[in-house]
Amino acid sequence: MNLLVTGGTGFIGTHLVKALAVEHNIHVLLPPDLDVILPNNVHSIVFFDNISELNNYIIKNEIEGIVHLATLFIAQHQPENIKDLILSNVFLGTALLEAVEGSKVKWFLNTGTIWQNYRPNCRRYHPTNLYAATKQAFIDMAAYYVETTRLKFVTLKLSDTFGDGDTRRKLFTILKEASMTGETIQMSPGEQYLDILHIQDIISGFMHLIQLLNDNKKLDAEYVLAARQRYTLKEVVTLFEKVSDKKLTINWGGRPYRKREIMQPWKKGKLLPDWQASLSLEEGIALYLKKSK
Amino acid sequence: MNLLVTGGTGFIGTHLVKALAVEHNIHVLLPPDLDVILPNNVHSIVFFDNISELNNYIIKNEIEGIVHLATLFIAQHQPENIKDLILSNVFLGTALLEAVEGSKVKWFLNTGTIWQNYRPNCRRYHPTNLYAATKQAFIDMAAYYVETTRLKFVTLKLSDTFGDGDTRRKLFTILKEASMTGETIQMSPGEQYLDILHIQDIISGFMHLIQLLNDNKKLDAEYVLAARQRYTLKEVVTLFEKVSDKKLTINWGGRPYRKREIMQPWKKGKLLPDWQASLSLEEGIALYLKKSK
Repeated sequence: MNLLVTGGTGFIGTHLVKALAVEHNIHVLLPPDLDVILPNNVHSIVFFDNISELNNYIIKNEIEGIVHLATLFIAQHQPENIKDLILSNVFLGTALLEAVEGSKVKWFLNTGTIWQNYRPNCRRYHPTNLYAATKQAFIDMAAYYVETTRLKFVTLKLSDTFGDGDTRRKLFTILKEASMTGETIQMSPGEQYLDILHIQDIISGFMHLIQLLNDNKKLDAEYVLAARQRYTLKEVVTLFEKVSDKKLTINWGGRPYRKREIMQPWKKGKLLPDWQASLSLEEGIALYLKKSK
Repeated sequence: MNLLVTGGTGFIGTHLVKALAVEHNIHVLLPPDLDVILPNNVHSIVFFDNISELNNYIIKNEIEGIVHLATLFIAQHQPENIKDLILSNVFLGTALLEAVEGSKVKWFLNTGTIWQNYRPNCRRYHPTNLYAATKQAFIDMAAYYVETTRLKFVTLKLSDTFGDGDTRRKLFTILKEASMTGETIQMSPGEQYLDILHIQDIISGFMHLIQLLNDNKKLDAEYVLAARQRYTLKEVVTLFEKVSDKKLTINWGGRPYRKREIMQPWKKGKLLPDWQASLSLEEGIALYLKKSK
């Protein structure tokens, strides 16, 4: 199959493109001015906001499915970020959907976040931050194409992710660094629960959903990928210490919780059917430490 | 009170600013490059995408309420319209909400459309066109500010409007022209129902909702303004002929229905409480013909 992937050079995208390229012909959509080396067998198109050109590319290359991973993530925005957030997270996806017109594209796999659901026990949308709001806004733009075309559109909502190749300054990067330097880490009180998945499971979730889409299964509008078990941040750190066999120096409460910190991740999401995480968090951490040496 | 109005130079905006300026101090937000003469007592700020500057203006002028009428309306979009639709209908409103930070603004009156609800008997969102989707996407963005601030945010959904000062090429303009020239009008088969309100009633609806907001009433997230009675397009033309006392030459079926023509306007919207249209359609047409001579 010919598939188009956006965000194909990001953390999840790099892993997903590699996994998909084994069986499929992969095209990645790149933003202008991105200097990146792609695997040999991966094609690319640079998107300069020209929807007709993208439409031609999709038709000419007989694209059949689109995986939309590209995102501008900003946990706590500033006023000057808003236009970029909207252009990256609302306009780009809408442009892609428009560019599907007259092509062979049968499905569109969209990536969401459980941050669209700040209230753990409520099914409905409650954005944690403006980033999450842009994710929801795009889904409502997509609704127009769902109403007016035969395109299948599914959103896969992700929670926290980790693994090798993640260049973002996130929890495990910080823990790993501190375990080498011995430095004290300033942490929030640490009672918030995390739902955190290793990249290997994230990829298996995407691959599974792509299979369901290709098999033309009847699907819901959205699913979540969830870890086998949730742990508090404190428990995660204890697990990390156990697996790495190194004691960390943490000042719990040395920094406050983030504004609108998620203490309990969303509980009402529908899990992707017939899929579960293969790794426990302990196994995920072990794999991470091994692969990111 | 100090109120900020966007779209204050459009059809509804011109009438609303005039009505509001009797009691309030009105500021209008203008787009760049708009050459317009404002009433003497109306202040203005030009918005060049600088949210901090807008925030300073709102604080300095002690704005207490915002009426957001500005919209880019495109019934059937082309690919090249999408970015503008999103910037005008999603970004501008979000920028305004962001610019409220630290100000005295208590409420935000947003303007929606019943085109967000293509299915007449379904309560939920089903966009008629991409324009309606941008209206919904903005409401998703606004949800973040509703979640995180004390701002009251209400959407007033409008259906069709008419009246003097409407420069758009719409039904009554066409009928009036044809009644003078005797020209044959090509029309769709004409069986679609219209919910069409005279500008005087539109303005009374906005004024009533602004009163409710100022009185700090407990309000729903959205209301609709609806006509007393709905008529088919054919019936509307018959009424027009009766009121104007001129026979029109119409070729019914001379053009097809629009793609996704609304045959039955939304039936599930909640009406603005304690308000109703004061004019029958017949009276509205009479007033229109008198005022637009």
